[in-house]
Amino acid sequence: MLQAAILGASGYVGAELLRLLAGHPAVRASRPFARSRAGEPVAAAHPQLAGDYPGAAFETFDGNLTGVDIIFAALPHGESQKLAPAILASGIPFVDLGADFRLNDAATYEQWYGDAHQEPEFLGQFTYGLPELHRKAIRASKAVAAPGCYPTATILALKPLLPFLEAGSIIVDAASGVTGAGRVPKEGTHFSTVSESFSAYGLLNHRHTAEMEMELGDGILFTPHLAPMNRGILATCYATATQAFDPLAVLHEAYAGEPFVTVSEEPPATKWTLGSNAARLTARYDQRTGRVIAIAAIDNLGKGAAGQMIQCANLMLGLDETAGLARSGVCP
Amino acid sequence: MLQAAILGASGYVGAELLRLLAGHPAVRASRPFARSRAGEPVAAAHPQLAGDYPGAAFETFDGNLTGVDIIFAALPHGESQKLAPAILASGIPFVDLGADFRLNDAATYEQWYGDAHQEPEFLGQFTYGLPELHRKAIRASKAVAAPGCYPTATILALKPLLPFLEAGSIIVDAASGVTGAGRVPKEGTHFSTVSESFSAYGLLNHRHTAEMEMELGDGILFTPHLAPMNRGILATCYATATQAFDPLAVLHEAYAGEPFVTVSEEPPATKWTLGSNAARLTARYDQRTGRVIAIAAIDNLGKGAAGQMIQCANLMLGLDETAGLARSGVCP
Amino acid sequence: MLQAAILGASGYVGAELLRLLAGHPAVRASRPFARSRAGEPVAAAHPQLAGDYPGAAFETFDGNLTGVDIIFAALPHGESQKLAPAILASGIPFVDLGADFRLNDAATYEQWYGDAHQEPEFLGQFTYGLPELHRKAIRASKAVAAPGCYPTATILALKPLLPFLEAGSIIVDAASGVTGAGRVPKEGTHFSTVSESFSAYGLLNHRHTAEMEMELGDGILFTPHLAPMNRGILATCYATATQAFDPLAVLHEAYAGEPFVTVSEEPPATKWTLGSNAARLTARYDQRTGRVIAIAAIDNLGKGAAGQMIQCANLMLGLDETAGLARSGVCP
Amino acid sequence: MLQAAILGASGYVGAELLRLLAGHPAVRASRPFARSRAGEPVAAAHPQLAGDYPGAAFETFDGNLTGVDIIFAALPHGESQKLAPAILASGIPFVDLGADFRLNDAATYEQWYGDAHQEPEFLGQFTYGLPELHRKAIRASKAVAAPGCYPTATILALKPLLPFLEAGSIIVDAASGVTGAGRVPKEGTHFSTVSESFSAYGLLNHRHTAEMEMELGDGILFTPHLAPMNRGILATCYATATQAFDPLAVLHEAYAGEPFVTVSEEPPATKWTLGSNAARLTARYDQRTGRVIAIAAIDNLGKGAAGQMIQCANLMLGLDETAGLARSGVCP
Repeated sequence: MLQAAILGASGYVGAELLRLLAGHPAVRASRPFARSRAGEPVAAAHPQLAGDYPGAAFETFDGNLTGVDIIFAALPHGESQKLAPAILASGIPFVDLGADFRLNDAATYEQWYGDAHQEPEFLGQFTYGLPELHRKAIRASKAVAAPGCYPTATILALKPLLPFLEAGSIIVDAASGVTGAGRVPKEGTHFSTVSESFSAYGLLNHRHTAEMEMELGDGILFTPHLAPMNRGILATCYATATQAFDPLAVLHEAYAGEPFVTVSEEPPATKWTLGSNAARLTARYDQRTGRVIAIAAIDNLGKGAAGQMIQCANLMLGLDETAGLARSGVCP
Repeated sequence: MLQAAILGASGYVGAELLRLLAGHPAVRASRPFARSRAGEPVAAAHPQLAGDYPGAAFETFDGNLTGVDIIFAALPHGESQKLAPAILASGIPFVDLGADFRLNDAATYEQWYGDAHQEPEFLGQFTYGLPELHRKAIRASKAVAAPGCYPTATILALKPLLPFLEAGSIIVDAASGVTGAGRVPKEGTHFSTVSESFSAYGLLNHRHTAEMEMELGDGILFTPHLAPMNRGILATCYATATQAFDPLAVLHEAYAGEPFVTVSEEPPATKWTLGSNAARLTARYDQRTGRVIAIAAIDNLGKGAAGQMIQCANLMLGLDETAGLARSGVCP
Repeated sequence: MLQAAILGASGYVGAELLRLLAGHPAVRASRPFARSRAGEPVAAAHPQLAGDYPGAAFETFDGNLTGVDIIFAALPHGESQKLAPAILASGIPFVDLGADFRLNDAATYEQWYGDAHQEPEFLGQFTYGLPELHRKAIRASKAVAAPGCYPTATILALKPLLPFLEAGSIIVDAASGVTGAGRVPKEGTHFSTVSESFSAYGLLNHRHTAEMEMELGDGILFTPHLAPMNRGILATCYATATQAFDPLAVLHEAYAGEPFVTVSEEPPATKWTLGSNAARLTARYDQRTGRVIAIAAIDNLGKGAAGQMIQCANLMLGLDETAGLARSGVCP
Repeated sequence: MLQAAILGASGYVGAELLRLLAGHPAVRASRPFARSRAGEPVAAAHPQLAGDYPGAAFETFDGNLTGVDIIFAALPHGESQKLAPAILASGIPFVDLGADFRLNDAATYEQWYGDAHQEPEFLGQFTYGLPELHRKAIRASKAVAAPGCYPTATILALKPLLPFLEAGSIIVDAASGVTGAGRVPKEGTHFSTVSESFSAYGLLNHRHTAEMEMELGDGILFTPHLAPMNRGILATCYATATQAFDPLAVLHEAYAGEPFVTVSEEPPATKWTLGSNAARLTARYDQRTGRVIAIAAIDNLGKGAAGQMIQCANLMLGLDETAGLARSGVCP
């Protein structure tokens, strides 16, 4: 079995990585790092994992990676910049979920994240970890920056349609489950704030816009919403078409043979992807208004985070791309 | 006390009318009609109303409206057309929630609803029941067609901004709670279909588009979504601006003094309106893309249905417009 | 209009008091006190109340109660002890939701709450605020200790059945919505901890046991559970019967004429009471095992807190007992 | 790969069997039977399975089982009786989730299910499929009757404690997610009936009582509740202790080495088991009242149905007992 280290193992993405690796045929999560809970049993932070990790405890990361074959990081943005130089020097394959190395240039990072990038010269060493678009490059990479959850859904829905879309006309209206807001208890994640409620947030300036524009072009207006559910992202994307066309057929062709992407006429529900690495798509061209709608559903912790990280790692390690990952959602 | 008849009293809107009228200082729901449950106690269909309607039973409507001062109808579309001639002849004020008399012309009705309108000559006798836009006309009317839930939210959010919006550029992306799908149990309203899920439906052709275009102009693309909650509509509306402007200030000015509309910078949550007749709005102009976002939150059974019907009835009956209606949501 | 002060107005019970008093015909919440948010607009803490309290702001309580006709307190236990002497000296009617003055003697308080009672001589001046059992005493009181949410449900379900129950045989198994855990964000109230989950807590030693035993006798085993919903308590109570009898008939007779208690054969759902002051009861005698089940449903913020406080205040102020309170739940 | 037939593949348990077998290393669900949907694609009934079953369609069962190595049935009670003689004659291992062959004698079946048993002579050929109690017998059986969801939780929690419990003193108070009510849309499973609600049902006479009494002795009073969640059962069990003892230690010892049962001091949450075959237990002895509480959490579709069926099949087929089954819940 290959040995995996997880940096940030006490959060929600950490929990999902631990859960998925418990069922992975070739990789084991043997080093769960979590500074704030070092020494605590994994099952204290994640009681749902007690059966799979009966004796495991969190460690503090001191740079020692002896015996580690793959490194996953799920840390707040800014943290990976501090670790990247040493990790890349080690030569151990690295899959980072942070925003630090997703964008192509340091200026865009600073524009959207507010801080100057500390390691701009490393930006070029990371591949954007969306296998459906960059499979070959991921396979050849030692460092992958896994996309954010909203960009994953949005880019999968729109990228194949770009040749038919007017530049600068994209509007992305998306809804996310509450796990997307992270584990730290806040007024905004209190059950009684969220349950029976639906609201928009981050108007005009959500940071994931930068990733979307990197892959889809400038001029995107993105509005995220919080939905009263644990997991799931639905991205409903609008654009003006340059001509009448059949977007469903374009998506079908683009994703034929993809193990985790399914295109169907029926509008997808996020629940179809719960706990899995699936992405479910549909699209329409509206003759009446000349616009296109493209919709993607994923699990924000699956294809939007931990699942996609493992999919990338499978490619980097020369394993079956689907190892340890489910295609079917835990539904109903 | 004035006496109200409710046609369609066994459904969800009927239940909300009964609940609200139980607390109304001047109107009493004395005649609950529901063909399919005639003879049954009201509390059998609506156990939550047992305390307020201990002995009441549903009746079959036979046209006799002796003693009735106001008629509310919450029936499937097509039903009001059959009843309207007799009701209008009676001279009793009539508030209809059906779609039959909302639109200005029979051709548009047929285009979106599929059936030829049976009573086109009565269309002109109904006022569109959105008090914030048509208060004076409602006060003078004997017949009001209360708007649909999605149009109420959308029109309130966008109408004052129209002078600043490019014609034909409006996109409406909205989410609704499950009560919007009605009371009849279906695969799509089963708890285990909806809970932990979010999905779009009615792509390209939802009938409420017709009402939105009647009030806001042609070329609207409207996409409704189903959210895992009981009540609430959030309409997130996009349009291209013809110039830079402050949409929040425009909304503030437009709704100053309105008893049920509150404009704030914070994006509204549907839960703030639960059980009430409130509408909560915000808006932004995005310099980067030249677009406007306007957002409205309402309770689909409140301001989106029963609450608005009572608000209209209050105006028609010469009562305090706010009588029996709440401004604050049942939250948390 | 009578003027009400609310101590602890920024919490969930505070919000419900503010909401209910906005619709009260004779009492107005003119003095919202909340130390930690003094100076902030009420609508910042409770955006759902923006329409009813547009200009109001929280104050720090300095003991000055000029012009106040009724005082409501919804503070953590221990706080009322500090305030009670001054408030009682003022002669202004006082309805306290804290646990401080609910129990008959200081020793029991210390046993369950861990701290010595600071004002034991005031215990005798408070009436236990369950109107269905102590209406006459409440009417004559200047100080009322409103019951906890779990005891309200449990005592209403079991008290009339006591003559038929074996002493020491009562088991109470109850579930509560998340608002019962208060407003402060915690791991245990994070949406993603609670949603799609059901669990027991406070095994063997929940403090509300003391109140239940005060009214129902010793030997009660009480187990609370957390249910994935905002509001509602369902108490399912078991006891051994001393004889075969019809507990439903006993409950019907006991609560005949009670404005907020409805007894029915159908097992009640918490949603029937949402946002209201209703209590819904059923009961069965099981010939097979010789046991009785009695079930009560209430809204923990309604009849279990703010609603009951206002019911008590109405009695103390000589108003209609039902003023400002709903009998029907906001349902569906 | 071994070939599995699923009778009743279009329901919720069928969906979970299909999902789990898609990840099973040695068994494939090659024959999905569903009379009412014969000919339809599996993905039409279960869109969440589209990625794993792209071309599969439901069949009508005509008795032909050529090439089938294991048969799973998830049919309404009464149906298995009709099929059992032929299936048992075929010699193919058979795991039945119906109630038909769970009980030891036909009289008890008739008492609780209301109909005379049609094949009483086959009752003795079925083993009760709870591996933790009957592993050896299951391994040696050709026919297994998998337990109901409530009995699984209850029996796991109480069986090891029986030597310390007073006969006839057991009370079981349990809550279930809505999938337990099956897939057919009903008033009681409508989202807007269930969400934000909690209620008891089946007072005094739920059929699962018979199974509990078969394994735990007579005199059990069982009250099920419906919780607003998709999956999960929490059984909170009470009994009078015959002596002071440490029930947690007893459970720890009883389940040491069990792959799917974890005992812990912290009260378990149903979400810890979501999508898995895990059972999570805790227990307490209450010195004050002399009673014991034992609590079990499972996923009603996992350890309470499809997971347990596969666990039994693994034993019957000589496979690793844990093959294709998860220990960790899909949580958060």
